[in-house]
Amino acid sequence: MKISILGGGGFLGRKIAARLAKDGTLGGHPVTGLTLFDIAEPSRPAAGFPVASLAGDIVTLPDSAIPEGTDVVFHLAAVVSAQAEADYDLGRRVNLRGTDAVIDRCRALVAAGGKPPRVVFTSSIASFSGSQNVTVADNTRQVPGNSYGAQKAAAELILADASRRGFLDAVSLRLPTVIVRPGRPNKAASSFFSAIVREPLLGLDAELPVADDFAVWVCSPRRALDWLLHAAVMDTGKMGLDRSIDPPGISTTVAHLLQALEDVAPGAASHVKRVEDRAIAAIVSTWPPAFEALHARTLGFSAHEPVLDVIRAFIEDDLAATRAERGL
Amino acid sequence: MKISILGGGGFLGRKIAARLAKDGTLGGHPVTGLTLFDIAEPSRPAAGFPVASLAGDIVTLPDSAIPEGTDVVFHLAAVVSAQAEADYDLGRRVNLRGTDAVIDRCRALVAAGGKPPRVVFTSSIASFSGSQNVTVADNTRQVPGNSYGAQKAAAELILADASRRGFLDAVSLRLPTVIVRPGRPNKAASSFFSAIVREPLLGLDAELPVADDFAVWVCSPRRALDWLLHAAVMDTGKMGLDRSIDPPGISTTVAHLLQALEDVAPGAASHVKRVEDRAIAAIVSTWPPAFEALHARTLGFSAHEPVLDVIRAFIEDDLAATRAERGL
Repeated sequence: MKISILGGGGFLGRKIAARLAKDGTLGGHPVTGLTLFDIAEPSRPAAGFPVASLAGDIVTLPDSAIPEGTDVVFHLAAVVSAQAEADYDLGRRVNLRGTDAVIDRCRALVAAGGKPPRVVFTSSIASFSGSQNVTVADNTRQVPGNSYGAQKAAAELILADASRRGFLDAVSLRLPTVIVRPGRPNKAASSFFSAIVREPLLGLDAELPVADDFAVWVCSPRRALDWLLHAAVMDTGKMGLDRSIDPPGISTTVAHLLQALEDVAPGAASHVKRVEDRAIAAIVSTWPPAFEALHARTLGFSAHEPVLDVIRAFIEDDLAATRAERGL
Repeated sequence: MKISILGGGGFLGRKIAARLAKDGTLGGHPVTGLTLFDIAEPSRPAAGFPVASLAGDIVTLPDSAIPEGTDVVFHLAAVVSAQAEADYDLGRRVNLRGTDAVIDRCRALVAAGGKPPRVVFTSSIASFSGSQNVTVADNTRQVPGNSYGAQKAAAELILADASRRGFLDAVSLRLPTVIVRPGRPNKAASSFFSAIVREPLLGLDAELPVADDFAVWVCSPRRALDWLLHAAVMDTGKMGLDRSIDPPGISTTVAHLLQALEDVAPGAASHVKRVEDRAIAAIVSTWPPAFEALHARTLGFSAHEPVLDVIRAFIEDDLAATRAERGL
């Protein structure tokens, strides 16, 4: 299997690359080549197969980012929520034109006689809006409350159409808020959901910009990785025209998350400071806190582990590396 | 009121221009200027206010197409279903990049201190798919079965987001199949719905490619015009983030349509020949035949007249011009 990861230098891109390097296989097939692409050259994991790494602009995607014979493209390259809100042109350019560039490259490969590559695209729950009381059904219309979500929803439509036309074979995963993200806070409006667990575990304070009873739809990095790898090899024949999936995350509250943190690391939750931030609250409060995710279950996406396990997994997988990265 | 019609040379664009010229007002306000824009220079109706007409490419939209101080933009410029299916690049360019160009022009006007123009956008029921048994609710997710529909649905999302950001003030109307279209048959899959009424009234045969019990969601040109004008002046404050409307068309069947034709012009229906066309049937059978359209009613969109009136209106409004145009 020949695989490309666009956005290969990001959090999830690096996790996919590391897993492929470790396993040497995807869906039971040996990995024969991996290409990592990002705005800065991604670091290459040590692997038993060739790994190429290149830097560039997704909109002027070089052919070498998706070489001939590519079986799977993970298209994770994006301008995230707060940044797309702050810079409309940049968001539109990367999130929409970038997706068109991926489509055009796949289409060129098909026109040259290749097989339509599987394209696993990371969409987001930010493409929905709804009150804190809503549970979103699989056929609910996306009414985004932010530019990032609008661009992701539009890209899903364009990718589904490109699949129907045989240019590629897309699976769009509307990822929940992924917690606990390692490293540093980022420009996503949802960044604090990770920070209120990660920072206390590092012995640092974190700001909570919403109320304790705020409900949120989340998934762990482990589960996101599982879903992305499943999307890369699953049978899309059952999906029909609809190539988008609400994967089975879990609905939790800030209070429940902090209780779980306290259970794992007694005293840690005292590092969380209530600091109202209306701009952040305005964005995240439009994201529905629960999804039915029935379709995903019938398509074989794995069920989510409890919140307690999410925090334990962060400690196991990412805490030491985060500490080292930040010189703590 | 300063008004622009993009796609001002098309069927509906010409109807809007003629109505504005006749009334001299829109929503009770005097029209002070009208700009018509299309790929070929649209003909200008005689009017009591200045009318400009210009030709150009929607993607490289000249500023003069939406002059300073424009209150309302009718954005009807599109590559339609059959053409967007045959030429992917052209459809994407006009239907998506063209909409971006409209957004960018409105945005520039707002940045220069202007008011966000009302943008009335023609989306389509082709942005949905479903069986002959489906009644589509207002919050149903769009899963298009053709590139035109996918591009329209994506443009709706981008226009709603642009509205939220204050670049413009959009209302997207998902028009039903408009019958009875004047002029000649074209290669659009839906062309026969008009042809089976128009051609017999001209004394000509028409082919029916689907069964008589085939159900379809339609509207008349008169009703489409009413809705477009209402969308131009309605209060969008009640719409929230969702700027798309399923207007209240009517669900009818081929049999009902032919019975009404027979009632208006006895013997005419004998010109309709049953000629199965599986390619056409495959396309049109993915379009849902009924919509709840509840939201539209609360927003003041007028209810539809019966099918009998649709046929009489065609005879009154368009039959003589069609006869003349075709030298009959």
